[in-house]
Amino acid sequence: MTSLMINHPINFMASSVIRTLSQSQRMQLPMLRPTRMHALSIKSDLEIMRQQMVVVDDDESYAMKGGEGPHSYAKNSIIQKGLIDGSKRLIQEAISQSFDPKEHIHGNDESSTPICIADLGCSTGPNTFFAMQTITEAIQLQFQSHGLASQIPDIQVLFNDQVSNDFNTLFKNLPQQRIYYATAVPGSFCGRLFPKQTLHLVHSSAALCWLSKLPNEITDSDSSACNKGRIHYTDAPKEVADAYATQYRKDMGNFLHARAQELVGNGLMLLQFPVSNVVLDSDVDPAKVFELIGTCLVDMAKVGVISEEKVDSFNVPLIYPSVKAVKEILRGCDECFSIEWMEILEFKNMVSLPTVQIFVSWFRAALQGMIEKHFGAEIVDELFERFAEKVKEFPDIMDKDKLKLDVLFVLLRRKNKFSTSNSLVPLNICHKMYKT
Amino acid sequence: MTSLMINHPINFMASSVIRTLSQSQRMQLPMLRPTRMHALSIKSDLEIMRQQMVVVDDDESYAMKGGEGPHSYAKNSIIQKGLIDGSKRLIQEAISQSFDPKEHIHGNDESSTPICIADLGCSTGPNTFFAMQTITEAIQLQFQSHGLASQIPDIQVLFNDQVSNDFNTLFKNLPQQRIYYATAVPGSFCGRLFPKQTLHLVHSSAALCWLSKLPNEITDSDSSACNKGRIHYTDAPKEVADAYATQYRKDMGNFLHARAQELVGNGLMLLQFPVSNVVLDSDVDPAKVFELIGTCLVDMAKVGVISEEKVDSFNVPLIYPSVKAVKEILRGCDECFSIEWMEILEFKNMVSLPTVQIFVSWFRAALQGMIEKHFGAEIVDELFERFAEKVKEFPDIMDKDKLKLDVLFVLLRRKNKFSTSNSLVPLNICHKMYKT
Repeated sequence: MTSLMINHPINFMASSVIRTLSQSQRMQLPMLRPTRMHALSIKSDLEIMRQQMVVVDDDESYAMKGGEGPHSYAKNSIIQKGLIDGSKRLIQEAISQSFDPKEHIHGNDESSTPICIADLGCSTGPNTFFAMQTITEAIQLQFQSHGLASQIPDIQVLFNDQVSNDFNTLFKNLPQQRIYYATAVPGSFCGRLFPKQTLHLVHSSAALCWLSKLPNEITDSDSSACNKGRIHYTDAPKEVADAYATQYRKDMGNFLHARAQELVGNGLMLLQFPVSNVVLDSDVDPAKVFELIGTCLVDMAKVGVISEEKVDSFNVPLIYPSVKAVKEILRGCDECFSIEWMEILEFKNMVSLPTVQIFVSWFRAALQGMIEKHFGAEIVDELFERFAEKVKEFPDIMDKDKLKLDVLFVLLRRKNKFSTSNSLVPLNICHKMYKT
Repeated sequence: MTSLMINHPINFMASSVIRTLSQSQRMQLPMLRPTRMHALSIKSDLEIMRQQMVVVDDDESYAMKGGEGPHSYAKNSIIQKGLIDGSKRLIQEAISQSFDPKEHIHGNDESSTPICIADLGCSTGPNTFFAMQTITEAIQLQFQSHGLASQIPDIQVLFNDQVSNDFNTLFKNLPQQRIYYATAVPGSFCGRLFPKQTLHLVHSSAALCWLSKLPNEITDSDSSACNKGRIHYTDAPKEVADAYATQYRKDMGNFLHARAQELVGNGLMLLQFPVSNVVLDSDVDPAKVFELIGTCLVDMAKVGVISEEKVDSFNVPLIYPSVKAVKEILRGCDECFSIEWMEILEFKNMVSLPTVQIFVSWFRAALQGMIEKHFGAEIVDELFERFAEKVKEFPDIMDKDKLKLDVLFVLLRRKNKFSTSNSLVPLNICHKMYKT
């Protein structure tokens, strides 16, 4: 297993090795620190510090469509807004029950530390602004209801998304009347993004369904998980779905490990993401949509608009896990996090029935960047016109009663006694992930 | 005086008043908080908190040319790089003498707070990356030389510039091997940008010469400071220069007051900015360059490419103050900051003689945004072609011996006993500025 090989101190310290690692391998580096004893024996203090603190950028970056044009995320994210609106009450209740304002009062106005809130996978707005407004107002109310309104510390919101996200649009549209200091942090949330023990609350909505990368084997023609003629796991052999699931567990392990280091003791994490709830044969798997888009691409290959090889090497790095799979992953992290709240929200109650156009535009805003990168910008219009036709032919995909998509709302609390130093605990978590 | 009127609690708390304030007036709001006693008697706690914590965006924003094209700041900032290279030794020495690593060691690895460094007016890179590398390496060496290499906390760099700055380009080009967590903060540095007492070191290079806004009177035809037929104070009546100087003192006052709140006690501020050192009649004032650009615009108005009114209403919001003027401003802040180091660096020793093309491109990268906004994008090429001709006609503007441009390097330390709460001290500073 590559990650375990890299974990050997000697290998880790060799910068030539680091440079030759693939992006996916480098993604795992921040959590694989050597013990200081080994390190000191090899290189100068300064060089060691440089390597220990290496921060990893994501060049396999799949940001939503930027700007504010007709196909942008900013103009095509009404469904994601439904998730945020639908869980507003839960967020308010979670903060009311679990956020203790007294932990932020130090008696002396001079020494108050700010309350730091991170939104991971924020995209360009406006949805992140609604979510941050809900959270910051709920925190304020919490101070108010404890009679501490006059002692509320400054609030800082750290907006995070991939390096390729359009942060210029995010900044341009920041609400004028916000009650927090706005900050942006670029990079994959599967790695470290923030200094240790600086976050008090982490939020992420509709972002944890994206994989950090595609599993290598699905484009490896020698592998039984090779996914030729398809772009997703829905209509594929079991090996493909397994490869997706394995990558998902790795990503979630890395995500949870990074947050365990960045959150303060008792810090909170509010996560919500889509999950699949397929039970009956007549149920429509939410991932079915990628089967439809895949058939459009295959059709375009048949008429020579794109090549078959291009279709074979393209896959969408998104997963709708089952609630059971998520629960297993979270239970594997019980040394770092306690599960304070878990609730399944029915997607059909959160979003009103979209038109075909809105439905197609939603997926276009999400996928356009990676499609342009892989196939070229010239095929995008035709692809989504074909996709709109497929949706009309298969209307069940938009039937909220048949589409078995739920939203899982989770509130985690970082345990207070968990050590962030070079402890074995985080590595154990990751091993559990890899073994599953 | 508008700022004093706003400072009345009743006026301040009326949100309708806040909304009708001009940008320049709103800029001053964050430091003009009412006392809590007044506030509580008027509105609900929540509404008060919302208003007290209002963060101000800058809509009169003059960012450098973004992207990485031939006219971008990224490709045309070799002269600013000269400033950073030229002061590298001073930065290293300043940190060596004044940055105490022991203040960052809390004995317990779990509770270590990160070292936060802000670069104000960072633009798109790469200059900011060189500066941050110098500073972070100097800080590491400081830990190392005190035998504390194994206890260095995480380092976070907060890159700041106007909201309209191209942060996407900044993020894209972040050094892969950096030893800090990168964060961006949008907004004018004349207002509050960061939670209070969170910064350990502030850096700003070649940015404090930009005014936050143009003084109103220079475009007011009823004022004796009206600056018709010119775009700067160089060749203008004394009243125009006075208006620039007054705005500069206000901006510097706001800048210093905001940083006094954001820096921790003993926090450091490393500033460097161009200053004018004109003594003899034969000396060339560095601001002369705007006289040349102004004559190009006047010529273009004469041949009907642009209107005279457009030229009359355009002015460049940049000042080269004298060292004497800067010293006076800094002395006015001695209740908050001690001056640890002040050194004048000769520009001619920091930058090699540029070609006309480099010289013109330098000003184009800086001015293109505001020229496009005011005159339209179509005039930019012609303007800078004409400017190149003027530079050839007046070669003294590029003669480093005649051009009386220096760089002032200042190291300030935030005094430890200074209160950031609703004390009168910051307001006194501002009053001093306004009265001068």
